[in-house]
Amino acid sequence: MKRTPQVVSEAGLPERVTIYEVGPRDGLQNEEAILPVEVKAEFVRRLVDAGLTAVEVTSLVHPRWVPQLADAEELLAAVDLTAAPRMPVLVPNERGLDRALAAGVREIAIFASATETFARRNLNRSLEDQYAMFAPVVTRAQAEGLAVRGYLSMCFGDPWEGDVAVDQVVGAGRRVLELGCSELSLGDTIGVATPGHVEAVLGGLIAVGITMEQIAVHFHDTYGQALSNALTAMRLGVTTFDTSAGGLGGCPYAESATGNLATEDLCWQLHGLGIDTGVDLAALVETSSWMAGQVGKSPASRVAAALA
Amino acid sequence: MKRTPQVVSEAGLPERVTIYEVGPRDGLQNEEAILPVEVKAEFVRRLVDAGLTAVEVTSLVHPRWVPQLADAEELLAAVDLTAAPRMPVLVPNERGLDRALAAGVREIAIFASATETFARRNLNRSLEDQYAMFAPVVTRAQAEGLAVRGYLSMCFGDPWEGDVAVDQVVGAGRRVLELGCSELSLGDTIGVATPGHVEAVLGGLIAVGITMEQIAVHFHDTYGQALSNALTAMRLGVTTFDTSAGGLGGCPYAESATGNLATEDLCWQLHGLGIDTGVDLAALVETSSWMAGQVGKSPASRVAAALA
Repeated sequence: MKRTPQVVSEAGLPERVTIYEVGPRDGLQNEEAILPVEVKAEFVRRLVDAGLTAVEVTSLVHPRWVPQLADAEELLAAVDLTAAPRMPVLVPNERGLDRALAAGVREIAIFASATETFARRNLNRSLEDQYAMFAPVVTRAQAEGLAVRGYLSMCFGDPWEGDVAVDQVVGAGRRVLELGCSELSLGDTIGVATPGHVEAVLGGLIAVGITMEQIAVHFHDTYGQALSNALTAMRLGVTTFDTSAGGLGGCPYAESATGNLATEDLCWQLHGLGIDTGVDLAALVETSSWMAGQVGKSPASRVAAALA
Repeated sequence: MKRTPQVVSEAGLPERVTIYEVGPRDGLQNEEAILPVEVKAEFVRRLVDAGLTAVEVTSLVHPRWVPQLADAEELLAAVDLTAAPRMPVLVPNERGLDRALAAGVREIAIFASATETFARRNLNRSLEDQYAMFAPVVTRAQAEGLAVRGYLSMCFGDPWEGDVAVDQVVGAGRRVLELGCSELSLGDTIGVATPGHVEAVLGGLIAVGITMEQIAVHFHDTYGQALSNALTAMRLGVTTFDTSAGGLGGCPYAESATGNLATEDLCWQLHGLGIDTGVDLAALVETSSWMAGQVGKSPASRVAAALA
């Protein structure tokens, strides 16, 4: 039985892309069963060993908000933060930045909202006030020599507001980059986006002078659209894609258990297109299957289900 | 909670497309639990009521080969074959055509192979001999005023042969159309295709003078690639897409339970792109959930899982 796609490239696509693995943070934070820190450390190690060059390790939020990640410092001590080129940690505020610096983290991520309602619900700030909250975090991180990624959530729809205007997303994305972030990750947090919408948002960002080298896309597969949207973004020049091993993790604001685009499903497409990801698909599937077992689920990834 | 995508169109795409629903035939034939004919008739009726304009009803193969569809004549008597513009039936040979004509069918489909091994295994013929086998079926069907669709399977990979050369697929597709078929449905039977491969096969067909109006695409979601491949085909001018309600049915030759692209997942994308399908998504999801219950499974469709 074939276990790899036939390789046929497509004109205009990049030779290689960066897969930004969010499983250990975004994936696990939505899993109820609290895992031992040793299991999380092994997960990170195995992802790096499978060839992933960017692995978001954990989040330094207050343990009250995300019990799964309450062991962040222990985990950061247990993993080699130089094992991969990028091993960022999510940081919500200056206290989180202090903890990140103490742990020897070299890249952080902040998590902003594209909508008023989600800014208030998730950050307890207005849309406008979130920038003031993040400004000192980004400024200090930069002064300490850390790279900063800015997440922007609800870019393609909001569970309370419904449709989100493209101009609003473009404006919010610009503000996040102006804070000093070197990368802006556009999140389809509830998985509703379709390809024309992706083109419109990316086109809007290009129109205000933002380059696709600054952009990452973070699609959820709630409605099965994530890979089509990623392909659309790649055809427009995006080369960084957020995914989760085995599709680990759901979104608490979406209706279905299905969350992040599965790393394996993106890899299958990229490898078929002859695009270098650095990822050993068999090792990744083994890792995802093992982690799915740890959280007591089957992998949401189609590739993992087919190859495991 | 949002239950529809934000509508943002994309330049160059069609205003409307045809979704060719294969659930009652291709979906059910791979389900083990034999369903009562009344349930199948209700399935077809509900699909037509949900707005599908092309529904493949059943297969007139010998009952020995597909026990699930042994009630084909009963089913054809129980459904209104004029309820939708296209209600074709799969026909393997002249005996099947006789039965189709007796049942008042107005369109048939034949099922050819793009590879030698699958031709021998599925048809007990060589690749070359399959055309001679189908020729009298197509000729007689046309003489009786019936439209004929030609399926071509294993166009993007074969479980025994591995990679399949694009030229071989183009040659086989041309032969199927030359028999007199009005539509050629290109099957990724084991779900391995990626977008560059889709472009290469469609480009090869265009290069020998075949138009995209003659083409349908039949993608399986075994590795999560079906919707990206459908989008790629649509961007090249294809306007007919084979799908199965709820993703019903697996492929017996692929490793995973996941088979046909789910009708709902394609609809979500098309509706987000502002493309008319005629389908009432809520009614379709209700139908798919009901049918999944009849076969004792959860729908494989992401949209059906999220909205049900």
